Amino acid sequence: MSSKNHLEKFPLDRAFTFFESGPVLMVSTSDGSKNNVMTMSWHMLLDFTPIIACCIGPWDYTYKTLTKTKECVLCVPGADIMETVVDIGNCSGEDTDKFEKFGLTALSGEKIKAPLVGECLANLECVVKEEKVLGEDIYMFILEGVCAWHNPHRKEQRAFHAKGDGTFFIDGEHINLRSRMTKWQDVI
Amino acid sequence: MSSKNHLEKFPLDRAFTFFESGPVLMVSTSDGSKNNVMTMSWHMLLDFTPIIACCIGPWDYTYKTLTKTKECVLCVPGADIMETVVDIGNCSGEDTDKFEKFGLTALSGEKIKAPLVGECLANLECVVKEEKVLGEDIYMFILEGVCAWHNPHRKEQRAFHAKGDGTFFIDGEHINLRSRMTKWQDVI
Repeated sequence: MSSKNHLEKFPLDRAFTFFESGPVLMVSTSDGSKNNVMTMSWHMLLDFTPIIACCIGPWDYTYKTLTKTKECVLCVPGADIMETVVDIGNCSGEDTDKFEKFGLTALSGEKIKAPLVGECLANLECVVKEEKVLGEDIYMFILEGVCAWHNPHRKEQRAFHAKGDGTFFIDGEHINLRSRMTKWQDVI
Repeated sequence: MSSKNHLEKFPLDRAFTFFESGPVLMVSTSDGSKNNVMTMSWHMLLDFTPIIACCIGPWDYTYKTLTKTKECVLCVPGADIMETVVDIGNCSGEDTDKFEKFGLTALSGEKIKAPLVGECLANLECVVKEEKVLGEDIYMFILEGVCAWHNPHRKEQRAFHAKGDGTFFIDGEHINLRSRMTKWQDVI
């Protein structure tokens, strides 16, 4: 794996700020012999520590590795690589080496073996706390973040969001309303 | 309740497009004698039908009504009412009539008794399918949308997203990448 000197550690207890806005993520895994990465929009915070829920099912190539290794990296891509991220979500690790095909840089994390993705705004090393199956076909993983990284040096710092219809919103105007957050002063 | 002639029905099976981007929502409930509304960022899609998971705990005034009535409306506010939505998230229905205090318009839905919020971009009437308690203090509700509404007439159509630190991103540039969504043509 390459040098990660452009990535810097980020306070784990503030890593929830990478995810609360609901950006498109990538999920990186390694089965020991091959790295893989998938694109994912269905995720939410469950706790500030952070704990994150996401939907990954047996139809995703990532599912098998995730259930076996019980670890993954949640990666937040910037708007500058949006097209690559969409293309990553439209092919499968089953027949594609996505790191190679898309020129992604796999970097060693600190706590787990799944790779950080060097091109992203932020990376959160996670372990699987629990897997829940809801009804017949909803597969939910509960992930706990164990080590957080960001890249404050890259020029494009905006994340992006999927509308779900093949269109995407880039983060726009950034508004500070901290003075109104009277009930949440200990969190913000 | 007032007239809702500015709201229009929206195809239920496309209502996931209101939520997939992870916007700040409001959750409206009625205990039969009083309407209430809370602000919420921790939610995710579980299915396109739509099924939505969200985190609402016993510390939220909404929790008691939601567990009792098993219904709520998920409301998508526009960026033009961001400050009101933040203020709604910083007081409690326990001691505040939020519809009155914030001048919200409660409108009758079609399938449930909790009110639509007339000022929002979109409203989804929901029933509680399941409540899950994860670990000691994570309370998750699984909601099923049963009737969807939107307001195509309001000028401000942008939603907004919480970063979690008291700052917010308004939906910015809207990018169409449908031609790259080769794997998801039946969804988009």
